[in-house]
Amino acid sequence: MTNAIEGRQPGQNWRLTLAYDGTDFFGWQVQPGLRTIQGELREAIERVTGEQVLPQGSGRTDAGVHALGQVASFPLAAPIPPRSLARALNRVLPASIRVLGAEYASESFHARHSARTKTYEYRIFQGEICPPMMARYVYACARPMNVDAMRRAASRLMGEHDFTSFAASDPDRAARIAEIASRGEDRPGNIRKIHQSEWATEGKLLIYRVGGNGFLHHMVRNFVGTLLDIGCGRRSEEVIEQILAARSRQAAGPTAPARGLFLIEVVY
Amino acid sequence: MTNAIEGRQPGQNWRLTLAYDGTDFFGWQVQPGLRTIQGELREAIERVTGEQVLPQGSGRTDAGVHALGQVASFPLAAPIPPRSLARALNRVLPASIRVLGAEYASESFHARHSARTKTYEYRIFQGEICPPMMARYVYACARPMNVDAMRRAASRLMGEHDFTSFAASDPDRAARIAEIASRGEDRPGNIRKIHQSEWATEGKLLIYRVGGNGFLHHMVRNFVGTLLDIGCGRRSEEVIEQILAARSRQAAGPTAPARGLFLIEVVY
Repeated sequence: MTNAIEGRQPGQNWRLTLAYDGTDFFGWQVQPGLRTIQGELREAIERVTGEQVLPQGSGRTDAGVHALGQVASFPLAAPIPPRSLARALNRVLPASIRVLGAEYASESFHARHSARTKTYEYRIFQGEICPPMMARYVYACARPMNVDAMRRAASRLMGEHDFTSFAASDPDRAARIAEIASRGEDRPGNIRKIHQSEWATEGKLLIYRVGGNGFLHHMVRNFVGTLLDIGCGRRSEEVIEQILAARSRQAAGPTAPARGLFLIEVVY
Repeated sequence: MTNAIEGRQPGQNWRLTLAYDGTDFFGWQVQPGLRTIQGELREAIERVTGEQVLPQGSGRTDAGVHALGQVASFPLAAPIPPRSLARALNRVLPASIRVLGAEYASESFHARHSARTKTYEYRIFQGEICPPMMARYVYACARPMNVDAMRRAASRLMGEHDFTSFAASDPDRAARIAEIASRGEDRPGNIRKIHQSEWATEGKLLIYRVGGNGFLHHMVRNFVGTLLDIGCGRRSEEVIEQILAARSRQAAGPTAPARGLFLIEVVY
């Protein structure tokens, strides 16, 4: 039981797929006195099973960020049919967090360490009046945008790069680097590989979809802020290479608001 | 200025069309110390124009009820172009309330007294797992429903009836009846005429649309609660006539939750 919080007690390892409206939460990660997704899930698991585990997410979404396919892993001692666990958790979780699926996972499965790629979407509403039922889930930005320039600039982010310029200055970074080094992971520092980076339009929505083998803190929102600078003509599309080469947060554009961002899928 | 609160000071009379997400408000009507749609709008008008008016709504939506086409009226002394007023109000209102349109109205126009018909929609999500981004805007009800029976029962609500059985017991009712009588209106008591009452399906959504020349307190939500009783086989569709004849709230079904209800349109 001493390792229960670390998720290493004996028992069945579980994998949950989650959707949530992040608006009213202080992000994924448990924080004392604050309402978080991880905290609500931990509490729901304890209410349903009586077991104290800390579910591990594929990554820590920030305050206000949503998910359609977040993945969490944790072990449970009690034998429970997967469908029963999903149903029981949904009965005690708030309506803004839903378990879309629950399944048994191999003992070695870890929602964060085992993740191979992740996909995010960022949604921008391009009209003068954003419908109130949409306001929590989009960045309302009425300025006309040159979407072709944004598409070309987005494609320049593809491939393997050092994305330091798009990473928030992160107080936890030293600790994270030490942790990554201790795991012997082969994506050190700020090098990540982006395999999808494109814009689509859907009515008045402008949707950015980006997939990669990992994302630094605020990386998608800093991509979007920079691409919007390019879309409204403030900067040229050729600036992407200079920003990447600069390896400095000051080189990139502003951080787009959290409310437009969705974690869509994690691939293992 | 003595009559400013009553909306009778000299000046241009205005008509606004509003949409709002009612989840985080205590309904339309101003209440001391509570956040309401009317209160937010009054404050926005004062911030934009410096004038103190109490906007009159077409009706008082309850806490948690939404609107896509609420109408409000009020007079303003300052001459303002309609488009400028809408824009300026949207800049100071919260994103959960939007002015969809602002126009000059005749001096005699009053959002409530002039209303001829209103249309509401009630949205039910018929799946096991309600998406979190939809949870604020639907009643999640996974029980299988006999939609054909609900359609037939809904059509029995059409026409002019005394809808006392579908009205909440309302502490303000005596005052309202006195007010109606003082206006010489020809819809006394609890008689209303329903010209549309039908169910549609849209994917996993079951949508009730009802239009009439007026609605008693909780009337649409009590229609829906009763129709759901019929849809899940608890009561037969023939019960509608008996409920209408009973003229007693006890005769009808439960009040469906506020979150599924939208005021769609007011016709003048």
